[in-house]
Amino acid sequence: MNPNRVHIAIVGATGAVGVEILRVLERRHFPVGQLTLLASPRSAGKTMNFQGREHPVRALEASAFQGVDIAFFSAGATRSREFIPHAIQAGAIVVDNSSAFRMDPKVPLVVPEVNAADLHSHAGLIANPNCCAAILAVALWPLHQAATLKRVIVSTYQSASGAGAQAMEELLQQVRDHVSGQPLKAEVLPHQLAFNLFSHNTKIAENGYNEEENKLIAEIQKMFHTPQLPMQATCIRVPVLRAHSESVVIETEQPLSPAQAREILSRAPGVKIVDDPATNHFPMPLEASGDLDVHVGRIRQDLSAPPQHGLALWISGDQLLKGAAWNAVQIAETLLPNSKKF
Amino acid sequence: MNPNRVHIAIVGATGAVGVEILRVLERRHFPVGQLTLLASPRSAGKTMNFQGREHPVRALEASAFQGVDIAFFSAGATRSREFIPHAIQAGAIVVDNSSAFRMDPKVPLVVPEVNAADLHSHAGLIANPNCCAAILAVALWPLHQAATLKRVIVSTYQSASGAGAQAMEELLQQVRDHVSGQPLKAEVLPHQLAFNLFSHNTKIAENGYNEEENKLIAEIQKMFHTPQLPMQATCIRVPVLRAHSESVVIETEQPLSPAQAREILSRAPGVKIVDDPATNHFPMPLEASGDLDVHVGRIRQDLSAPPQHGLALWISGDQLLKGAAWNAVQIAETLLPNSKKF
Repeated sequence: MNPNRVHIAIVGATGAVGVEILRVLERRHFPVGQLTLLASPRSAGKTMNFQGREHPVRALEASAFQGVDIAFFSAGATRSREFIPHAIQAGAIVVDNSSAFRMDPKVPLVVPEVNAADLHSHAGLIANPNCCAAILAVALWPLHQAATLKRVIVSTYQSASGAGAQAMEELLQQVRDHVSGQPLKAEVLPHQLAFNLFSHNTKIAENGYNEEENKLIAEIQKMFHTPQLPMQATCIRVPVLRAHSESVVIETEQPLSPAQAREILSRAPGVKIVDDPATNHFPMPLEASGDLDVHVGRIRQDLSAPPQHGLALWISGDQLLKGAAWNAVQIAETLLPNSKKF
Repeated sequence: MNPNRVHIAIVGATGAVGVEILRVLERRHFPVGQLTLLASPRSAGKTMNFQGREHPVRALEASAFQGVDIAFFSAGATRSREFIPHAIQAGAIVVDNSSAFRMDPKVPLVVPEVNAADLHSHAGLIANPNCCAAILAVALWPLHQAATLKRVIVSTYQSASGAGAQAMEELLQQVRDHVSGQPLKAEVLPHQLAFNLFSHNTKIAENGYNEEENKLIAEIQKMFHTPQLPMQATCIRVPVLRAHSESVVIETEQPLSPAQAREILSRAPGVKIVDDPATNHFPMPLEASGDLDVHVGRIRQDLSAPPQHGLALWISGDQLLKGAAWNAVQIAETLLPNSKKF
């Protein structure tokens, strides 16, 4: 590929993540030479603005990847399974935002701050992790390197955007209906989300965990190369639009004080410390929204763990950015032939 | 006191909890003989309906407790400290919803399902626990009795009602302003709550924990008579109106399987099991609102703990009911001379 004129394709260009990929490519001045926007036949014929110019959206088909250098897939696992082989065959490198290939041992699953080195082994396909896993990985990896994680317990506060643009619109519509005294409808998500929250709406597996929880655990274990790391997750959907928050408790093999952890995280790539007890100012989804960094705060000793061997953290990260679009573009940046990060 | 004609006083009668105390007394057919409603001078002169009749609200003053049998205090710690001695002097038994006396070793702190026996030692004053502590206590006590808790880790999802009626109204106003395109104001709570969430807005203590977290821990330890029980808490305010939810991870001394825990909790007083993986139906604040019981579900092995010695739970309970008004009235029911529960 010509590193100054990369031919980019976005599959699912009109979806919540697809739109953000386009915005992040602009924001990062990614050297886009040509842009192929693909979506369902329903969206074909629309146009989308990129760097001040309208680009047509075309219907996704197997022959759409001719000449594409990097293809971002964000149209669900089924479409990824069907069309990614065609994209690879056409010579594109695929960054897949779906869960289809994440646990395939031949496919690297990458958060660049954590395991960019795993990109070396790719065979045309790189998986982008689950949103909660990506956000958590950025905050935990520097602590793991410093003191070796022994146990991770996480409870999530996941925004509507994780279920797509329609779920965000449903939350907004519920709020409008509440204000105008209309009955609230839940059609995209299984329950009313306005003024409510609920256990993540994915299937409960045999181990009693829902798919989101099992993904979060398995993907952290894969990216950290610690397949046996003991992890516990509870995933909850909350009435927030687009950033996920996580309450995290860790145990470490080596001693690690809250002050040390704070110092380590303040130097860590992709992390912004938001931690001011004097003004009660800590990570909030509203402030993390739109930010490429993961916000980390409330760094303190876990009162139920031995001193220096347990910490609690509170983090927020934009689900559509670090949890999806930004991590995908960041992988693409790392793949550029002239990247110094690779 | 005449158990068929109890003279009840409510201090803070017009507040969010005061109103609920009145409703719960009606709902439970509490044998109210006389009703003294007390509030700030601002609210004096209003009337409140009880069993179809309007009752006047009077200004709180030291002389207001003559002849009162049971006085519910729900007007903040400062007013509790000032006026409770007068109520006790006048012969009333006080149930205090504030934090003023909860950790006083001479004052029983009671959730009737847990430690009704502690009521025997009262000297005119009983403290009603923090809302999150009351809700958590109901779910954990039966498991503690069965298998002895060794460690508790909890992350909360706390509704606006915990900060009072004004905070609930502020959330609703923010939603209305959002819909009508007006700027959102945060005056009662420190940050916008609509479409957002944040670390609980109490002062951060020297140990790095906010007051709410420290209360939750200390109060469970006191009620369970386990002052050394290792506990970890993260308290978060979410855009929900009136029920609190909690993600709970426990370790136990003795073996306890998820099936055993479920069976124990299904027989436990004050608990309703809401746990249907087939329909993804688990505790939700919207369903717990208005219910006297604490909803418990997602009962499963903690994947990061040794089998049979760690569990995860997800609970929701009405902050204004079990977290405040209902627990207070329940204490009063237990205090009635003819109560079989005492």
